Amino acid sequence: MKATTECIPCYLKQAHSAITAIISDEAEVDRLMKRIVPHLSGTRLQLTPAENSTVILKQVNKLLNTDDPFYRQKRQCNRVALQWEGELDSYMGRSSDRLKTAIKLSVVGNVIDLGIKERVDIKASFEAIFADGFVLDDSYRLIERVQEGRKKILFIGDNAGEIVFDKVLVRELIRCENEVVYVVKGGPILNDALIEDAREVEMDRLCRVIDTGSDWVGVVEKYSSPEFMRAYREADIIVSKGQGNYETLTEMNRKVFHILKAKCDVVARALGVRRGEMVCQLE
Amino acid sequence: MKATTECIPCYLKQAHSAITAIISDEAEVDRLMKRIVPHLSGTRLQLTPAENSTVILKQVNKLLNTDDPFYRQKRQCNRVALQWEGELDSYMGRSSDRLKTAIKLSVVGNVIDLGIKERVDIKASFEAIFADGFVLDDSYRLIERVQEGRKKILFIGDNAGEIVFDKVLVRELIRCENEVVYVVKGGPILNDALIEDAREVEMDRLCRVIDTGSDWVGVVEKYSSPEFMRAYREADIIVSKGQGNYETLTEMNRKVFHILKAKCDVVARALGVRRGEMVCQLE
Repeated sequence: MKATTECIPCYLKQAHSAITAIISDEAEVDRLMKRIVPHLSGTRLQLTPAENSTVILKQVNKLLNTDDPFYRQKRQCNRVALQWEGELDSYMGRSSDRLKTAIKLSVVGNVIDLGIKERVDIKASFEAIFADGFVLDDSYRLIERVQEGRKKILFIGDNAGEIVFDKVLVRELIRCENEVVYVVKGGPILNDALIEDAREVEMDRLCRVIDTGSDWVGVVEKYSSPEFMRAYREADIIVSKGQGNYETLTEMNRKVFHILKAKCDVVARALGVRRGEMVCQLE
Repeated sequence: MKATTECIPCYLKQAHSAITAIISDEAEVDRLMKRIVPHLSGTRLQLTPAENSTVILKQVNKLLNTDDPFYRQKRQCNRVALQWEGELDSYMGRSSDRLKTAIKLSVVGNVIDLGIKERVDIKASFEAIFADGFVLDDSYRLIERVQEGRKKILFIGDNAGEIVFDKVLVRELIRCENEVVYVVKGGPILNDALIEDAREVEMDRLCRVIDTGSDWVGVVEKYSSPEFMRAYREADIIVSKGQGNYETLTEMNRKVFHILKAKCDVVARALGVRRGEMVCQLE
């Protein structure tokens, strides 16, 4: 999908998140924000929101003189998410429809995102997805295909923390005798999971983990590694988590199962849902 | 209260609202947004968010060559809100605590704001305030003082549309034998109500309506008219609706009953509540 003018304030909001992830002095944050502001003029509606964000965030990194402002937050996200593993297991234990439950648990992971501060939010997200379900629900198609077994599944992950919630689904996909490759980013961008995160939560013990070869939000073909592109082309089924991957994969040429919560009006409109709603959509 | 760096993306968001209120071509919106972007560098943390917004919105008006981009939206807001008058009367008819109910109905008006598109949202807001009530609730103090009667009450209104919901409360204040002066803005800014709106919804038939003498968001003393400042000083009780008035009145020297829904994290933090929560606070 393409960016809209509505996205422009949001690029600045993301810049603010990155700056305040490591700087707390308001006067200094203000100074840095005002150095980022001129870069907004370089954003382009022909690109995806994810690509425009990346361009701005790379400018922020330059200013901050770091390549990973979210490093500490990611450690914290993984730590908090790992504390939920017992709860995840107990949901799975009570479930009569394990694949469906695992898909739902995976979207709970997407809800937590950077806001991983309060246990109560995660709890509320569990309740929401089990009460309301998916507004767009192609999960039965995913389940159908996965149950046939012997598929190559490319699972494109999103954030640190969230990756823990994906483990449950990855485990179920493997249990149905599929081969799963889990994808993280090739370099730090926002709070997106890296190989380090995959190791930290032991995703690499479950399946092969590769990266996009790129530190861009989502998946941008021209910046992706040949290894990733090969896995992308050879996969029988592609599962994608989160908005950044949705924004960019919809510009590429394969059908993908998108599992996400619509966190902004622009993505919600593209999906035909309302902000805050959760989807498992084949597009 | 003072602005924070978190407000800066929001100024741009408000600029986007103003631009798209009258321009639909995305390329043109993009061009105008990029002409507004440099003005963000002029925002100052020493000012209130409302003042910074006003400065940016005035630049938008210059670019758009209009003094009231929200003119049509305001007409629409009043029209939709007037359709709810029957519902408001029926809430009042069923109420055993008329003043408390009227205060609650008035905050429902604050919820609708610019998003006055779907009836269902207003309905949900009615349900929320009657189910959850105010998170900060000094309404009993307001009720106590109001019931003594013979008070001069200055009621500082907020948006078009919302003003219809305030009529119910104004009527109750008068029924308790108080004298009410209702305040609108002195010139167009955002979707804030003007004298024209007060007439359109017949607020002027209930009580005296004056304006701030200013087209700034909220109440900024140095731009306010002597008439308004006299009414402000002479009032026994001041009731204020909405965030803009909260942001600015907290910089002045009188205790005010603030009735609002916290629509952003910055104001929510200042109030000590969470975004989305509703308050009737004496500060």
